[in-house]
Amino acid sequence: MMKKNLLLPLLLLTSGLAAQAQHVDDSLLIRRLADTVLTNGGAYENLRVLTKKIGGRLAGSPATYKAEKWGAEALRRAGADTVYFQDVTVPHWVRGGKDEARIISKRRDFVAPLAVTALGNSNGSGEKGVTAPVIEVKNFEELEARKDEVKGKIVFYNYPFNPRFVETFRAYGDAVRYRGAGASRAAKYGALAVVVRSMSHGTNNFPHTGALHYNDSFPKIPALAIGLEDADRLSARIKADPSLQLFVRTWGKMLPDTLAHNVIGEIRGSEFPDQYITVGGHLDSWDVNEGANDDGTGIVQSIQVLEAFKKLGIQPKHTLRIVLYANEENATNGGREYAKQAKLKGEKHVFALESDAGGFTPRGFSLEVSPEQRGKIASWIPLLEPYGVYTVAAEGAGEDVGYLRPAIGTPVGELEPDSQRYFDLHHAANDVFENVNKREMELGAIEMAALTYLVDKYGL
Amino acid sequence: MMKKNLLLPLLLLTSGLAAQAQHVDDSLLIRRLADTVLTNGGAYENLRVLTKKIGGRLAGSPATYKAEKWGAEALRRAGADTVYFQDVTVPHWVRGGKDEARIISKRRDFVAPLAVTALGNSNGSGEKGVTAPVIEVKNFEELEARKDEVKGKIVFYNYPFNPRFVETFRAYGDAVRYRGAGASRAAKYGALAVVVRSMSHGTNNFPHTGALHYNDSFPKIPALAIGLEDADRLSARIKADPSLQLFVRTWGKMLPDTLAHNVIGEIRGSEFPDQYITVGGHLDSWDVNEGANDDGTGIVQSIQVLEAFKKLGIQPKHTLRIVLYANEENATNGGREYAKQAKLKGEKHVFALESDAGGFTPRGFSLEVSPEQRGKIASWIPLLEPYGVYTVAAEGAGEDVGYLRPAIGTPVGELEPDSQRYFDLHHAANDVFENVNKREMELGAIEMAALTYLVDKYGL
Repeated sequence: MMKKNLLLPLLLLTSGLAAQAQHVDDSLLIRRLADTVLTNGGAYENLRVLTKKIGGRLAGSPATYKAEKWGAEALRRAGADTVYFQDVTVPHWVRGGKDEARIISKRRDFVAPLAVTALGNSNGSGEKGVTAPVIEVKNFEELEARKDEVKGKIVFYNYPFNPRFVETFRAYGDAVRYRGAGASRAAKYGALAVVVRSMSHGTNNFPHTGALHYNDSFPKIPALAIGLEDADRLSARIKADPSLQLFVRTWGKMLPDTLAHNVIGEIRGSEFPDQYITVGGHLDSWDVNEGANDDGTGIVQSIQVLEAFKKLGIQPKHTLRIVLYANEENATNGGREYAKQAKLKGEKHVFALESDAGGFTPRGFSLEVSPEQRGKIASWIPLLEPYGVYTVAAEGAGEDVGYLRPAIGTPVGELEPDSQRYFDLHHAANDVFENVNKREMELGAIEMAALTYLVDKYGL
Repeated sequence: MMKKNLLLPLLLLTSGLAAQAQHVDDSLLIRRLADTVLTNGGAYENLRVLTKKIGGRLAGSPATYKAEKWGAEALRRAGADTVYFQDVTVPHWVRGGKDEARIISKRRDFVAPLAVTALGNSNGSGEKGVTAPVIEVKNFEELEARKDEVKGKIVFYNYPFNPRFVETFRAYGDAVRYRGAGASRAAKYGALAVVVRSMSHGTNNFPHTGALHYNDSFPKIPALAIGLEDADRLSARIKADPSLQLFVRTWGKMLPDTLAHNVIGEIRGSEFPDQYITVGGHLDSWDVNEGANDDGTGIVQSIQVLEAFKKLGIQPKHTLRIVLYANEENATNGGREYAKQAKLKGEKHVFALESDAGGFTPRGFSLEVSPEQRGKIASWIPLLEPYGVYTVAAEGAGEDVGYLRPAIGTPVGELEPDSQRYFDLHHAANDVFENVNKREMELGAIEMAALTYLVDKYGL
C-alpha cells in the first residue's frame, strides 16, 4: 500500500504557474469539468443502456436503428440544441447461423469442437460445410513458398501477435493482414477455406471476428478466426496427425447495401457558428458482443463532452458537433460520408477528435496535425496530465476522423488510452459492459472535454 | 481503431540520443530486459500458482508457510545464489466463522442478509451476536456531535470514497480512518458494534476487509465492513424505518503471536557485495481472496527482476536482494524486522524498491529520496517511458521499504501503477488471478528491473 502525501490541488496549481497565469484559470475550469464527469456524469449509465438494452449493432442489423434512435435521444438529453441524422449507405452483412469447426481424425482425443467465429464480410460454406486437409503456415512468405500444396486444402494462418510491442496496436497492425487478405491470398492457390489465428494476445480462448476484404479476382472462400488456445491446440494436433482433416461450416452472407445514419448533435458556436469542432466515436459494433469498448465507450464519452459543457454553462465559440458514426467496423462508410459532406458543403473544421481505442485510462492523444499545431497542443499537457494524458507524440488518428484530413485538411486526433487490455476483448464475446471500468472511461471523457475546451478557446 | 505509424525502436533511439550516448546502450539493455519479461518471463505462471494453488495467506495461517516454501523455491528457480528466511514475529488473527448482518424490521422488504465481512484484528460478537438500533453517521464530526445517542447502538459509518480524487490512493487515505479507528471511537461512547462503508468506489457489492486497530482504553467491539450497494440500501432503510435494528455476528479472534518469515533471495554483488539493493513486495494477504493484486503481483514482479537479470547474464555490482515480506496486512512486522536487522548489522543499503499497489500498467515511481536523487532518477525517464513510467514526481513509498528510511536513511521508492481499478478489488473477494492482466503486470516488472539496473550501474 502506497503512502500518498502528494496533493493534487497543489500539483494543479504548480502546473498552472509553470505555464502562463492564464493556465491557472484553465486548470480550474478543467478541474470543474472533471468533477462534473466524476461525480454526476451520464456516461456510465448511457453505456449500460447501449450495451445491455441494445447490445451488438452491426451495420444494417435491426439494432442499428434502435441505437440511432437511442443516440439521438441521448444527445438531446445531454443538451444538444440541434440533433439530426446524416444518411450513410452501408454494407449489410449477416452471420446467418452458428459457425463451426471440428477436427476429423482417427485420434479419439481430437473430437472437441474448436472455438471459432466467421470473419465479417465472409461468405458462408453452406449446409454441407467444407471438409479438407489443413496446411498450417506461419505467414504469407510460407504460403508463397508452399503454394503448390494449397490446392483443395484449408489454410491455417497461425501468425501470432508479437508480445514485444508494448503498444498493442502495433502488434495488431502487424498481424491483421492475415485476417483482411488471408482468404483471397489462399484462394488464389486453390484453398477451400481459411482459419486465422485471432488478432489477440489474450490469455483466453475467445475467437475474435473482424472485417475481411475479398479480392474479386479469386473465389470468395469461407474464413474463420480461431481462439488462441485452440489455435495452439490445432497446431499441436496437426503435428500429431498431419493427415487430419478440418470440417468448417459458416453461413455468412452479404445482403444488398442498406441505409444507416451518422447521428449528429450540436451546440451552436457563439462567435464562429460556421466553424466546427467534431468529437465522436462509432455507433456500430460487431454482432458477437455488446460493443462496449469498441466503441460504446467512445460514444458515451463523446456525448459526455457535450453534457459537461452544458452542465457548466460553457458556451463554445465554434459549433461543437458530436458525431456518432455509422459503420466503422466493416466499411468505415460513416466517416467517409461525413468527410465527403463536409467537403461538398465547404465546411470549415477547426479540429476533429475521436475515441475508438477502448474505455481505458488515458495516456495521450495521437495526432495528425502540423508541427506547429502539435507544439501548441503539447503546451497544454500540464493541464491534461492530472487526468492521465502526458504525451501527444504519437502520429495517427481514428479511422472515422481520419477521412477529414485528406478531404479538407482538418487537424485530427484520437484519445490514446492504455492499450494493454484492448485486444483481450476486441471483436470478441467478452467486449461487454462489465469489462469497462467506470472511472477509467470517465477519465477519457474528461481529457476529451478538456482538449475540446482548449481548442475552442485558443484555436489551433 | 487507431492507425499507428509511430515506430518504437525509433522512439527508443531518440530517447537515447536525447540523453547521453551512454543511454543508447542502456535503452538497448532495457529493451532486452523487456523482451525477456514479455516473451518468456516466469511471473504470470508464478502468480497462477501462488493465487490458485496457495490462495489467501493471512499471517499465521497454514497457507503462510506454504507460501514461504513456494517463495523460496521460486527464488531458487529464478537463479538466486542464496535463499534464506528471516524470522518475523507476527500477530495471528483468525476470522473464526461466517460473518453475518441482517436488518430486523417490521418491513417485509428488509429481510435480505447484507454483504459484510469482519474487519481484520477485530473481536467476534460470539454466538449470540449483537442486536441493536443503528445510528448512521457521515463522519467523526457527526459522531462527536451525536455522542449522547451512541450508547447501546450499532454505529454505521457511511463515509464514501471521494470520486474527485483522480489518484484513488488519496480517496483511500481520506476514508480509511473509519476502518482503522472507527470501532474504538464509537466504543468510547458505548457503541456495541460498528459497520463501516467499504473502502472502495467499485461498482459492485463486495465488502472490503482490512486492518482495524483497537484503542486499549475502550471495549473491543465487533466491527464489519459492508458492500457499497448494501451501504446505500441500509442507509435508505434507516430513513424508511428509523426504529430498525441490526443483527451482526462475527467470530474474529486474536491468537497468541506466532513466527513467520521474510523470504529473501540474493545475487551477490561483484564489486560491492556488502551494499544492498532491495526489491520486494509482501507475501501475506487477506483471507477473503487470493491476494492477487495485493500483493501477489508485487511478489512475482520482484522475483521476475532477479530472473531477468540471470537470464540476460547481468551481474549486479551491488548485492541484489529480493525480499518477500511477511505480514504487511495486519501489522507490517516483516518490513519493521527487515529494517531493524539492517540497522543492527550496520548494513549499507543503496536503494529499496517495493511493488504493492496492484499489477496494473505502470505510470510512475513514487519516491522518498533527496532532491538530488530524485533528479538523477528523473534523468532516466526517457529510458523508462517506453514501458509506461513517465513521472517520478510523487512523494511516498511502500509500507515495507518505508521502515528503512527512518532506520538507516535508505532512499526508497514504490512502483506507481494505474490506480483506477485497485480499490474495486482491494481486500475483497474479487482480488483473484483472473483480475490481473498478464501484460500490465509484466510492464511493471520491466520498470522495476530497469530502475534496479540503472541504480546498480550509476548509484544514487
